[in-house]
This record gives sequence, C-alpha cells and structure tokens, in this order.
Amino acid sequence: MENKKIFVILLLAIALFSCKPGVEKDQTVDWNAQTDLIFSKGVKITNNNFVGTAYVSMLVDADSLNQTYVGNVTFEPGARTNWHSHPSGQIILVVNGEGYYQEKGSPKRILRKGDAVKCPPNVLHWHGASSGSDFIQLAISSSEIGPTEWMDAVSDEEYRSNE
Amino acid sequence: MENKKIFVILLLAIALFSCKPGVEKDQTVDWNAQTDLIFSKGVKITNNNFVGTAYVSMLVDADSLNQTYVGNVTFEPGARTNWHSHPSGQIILVVNGEGYYQEKGSPKRILRKGDAVKCPPNVLHWHGASSGSDFIQLAISSSEIGPTEWMDAVSDEEYRSNE
Repeated sequence: MENKKIFVILLLAIALFSCKPGVEKDQTVDWNAQTDLIFSKGVKITNNNFVGTAYVSMLVDADSLNQTYVGNVTFEPGARTNWHSHPSGQIILVVNGEGYYQEKGSPKRILRKGDAVKCPPNVLHWHGASSGSDFIQLAISSSEIGPTEWMDAVSDEEYRSNE
Repeated sequence: MENKKIFVILLLAIALFSCKPGVEKDQTVDWNAQTDLIFSKGVKITNNNFVGTAYVSMLVDADSLNQTYVGNVTFEPGARTNWHSHPSGQIILVVNGEGYYQEKGSPKRILRKGDAVKCPPNVLHWHGASSGSDFIQLAISSSEIGPTEWMDAVSDEEYRSNE
C-alpha cells in the first residue's frame, strides 16, 4: 500500500515537472524555413529549361528605363538549370542552402549562403542545388542586349562531376 | 521516516525529469543575428554621403564586361544616405529590419524584409533605417553611364516626415 502511494506521487511529480516534447518541437528552428521567408518563393517553374523542382519569384522586372531584373530562385535538392548563357552576364547571390555553379570547361564550384558569383556575358554555365540541400539564390541580369540563351540539360554525369 | 523516503524519491524524480532552462536559453533565436549573417557586414562608411552609422560590403564589383555592382549596406537606427541619384537607376532589396525610401516630391515609404524597390535613373531619393531598427539592404546599380550623384543630407525634419 505504501509502495502504491510512492508510485502515485512519483507519477504526479513526473507529470508536473517533465519536459513537454511537443512544445519543444515547436521551438525547433528550421533555418531554411526562416530564410525562405526573406524573399517570396514564388511559383513552380514548369518550362523545360530546368531539371528537377524549382520555384521563381520575380522581385524586380526589366523596364524601358532600366532593363536589369531580379528573380529569387529556389531549387529543391538535385534541381538545376540547363546549360545557358546571358548576353549581359549574370550575378548570383546565395541566400541559403548549398548549391553548385559551373562554367563550361571549368570545375564545378560549391556555393553557400552569402556567396556571390559574377558570370561574364555569353559564358555557358549552369547552377542548382546540391543533392542534399535546398538552394536559394537571387539571379540578377539584364534584358538590354537580348534574352537568355538556353541549351542542353545538365546530365547526371555532369551534375555529379568532381564529387 | 516514510515521508523522508517519499521526499527523496520525489527530489530524484524532479532532478531526472525536469527541464533544463539553461539549455533552453541557448536555443533562443536572435533572428536579426541569423539574417545578418547572410551577407558580410563589411566596413564602416566614413564618407560624408551618409548621416549616422552605416556599413558596406561590396559583394560584386563593376567590371568592363558587366558594369553592374552589388553592395550590402547595413544602416544602424536613424542612419540614412544623403539625397542622391543614379544615372542608371538603382534596385534595393531588403534583407532585414525596417527602413525608409523616399523619392523627392513623394511620401516616404516604409520598407521591410523581402521588399524590393526599383528607383528610376536620375530620380533624387534617399534610403536608410527607421529610428527603431537596423536596416540591411542590397543595393544594385551600374557604373555604365556614370557615377552616383550625391546631394544634400536628409534633414531631421525630412527624415521624420509622415510619421
């Protein structure tokens, strides 16, 4: 009988003082989700210039006075652009995650949050997420000279090079 | 004696199952600190084109092939640019905090994380932090036509307008 009393008190103590895993879970931080929120994710890209799942939000459009435009692009793991080039060049600013950037004939580079790349005009290149991480990047270019020239998809062999 | 036994068991139970506030505190998130870290803060601006304390980190420089450049600018509360204009226009992308943007003759606008502004070429304007918040923004412009034209400081009266 005394043991039963101790057992009941023990249960009450545990109930009163134990941590609530459900509450703690809510406080867990998903860094990706947080930084996702800086710029809107936008809409799923449905054209054939990408492999895998990617989203784009146009933050600033080109206009007649200033033909520079900015898009926020979110690549899911493994997603990437096709090989392409920009007649005015392109600037890539990495907002979050880990991804790749490669110019034709050069080794693939790893890009992380805070990195910046300036791709020269008419240089064939691709960019996208690594296989284990989302990749969120701002893409800055200009429509002044002409549109982006899209080429072949990046094969799995090319994607996995230098790994 | 039996009560003492219960008391000891109770203490042990509390010690075993209670939460550790110290550990929880370490998990507290300073969102500002997190997003600060995306792009480097850079160096303190010491020229006379700003009022208050601001920092700049040049992420991408202009070059002969692509004269677009990108700077990450951090304004402390109350800090702002002087009135100025860009011959090629300017794009502002807000990374964190709260700030202001005003074109000459128009009301001051409040800018927050994720906002984008495209300021047309040769339009006189200023931008900076609100009085109660840091303001971190990417500034995208081009040196193609010519340098930024700097004018008078934004007076306290102008800064406080529409408040």
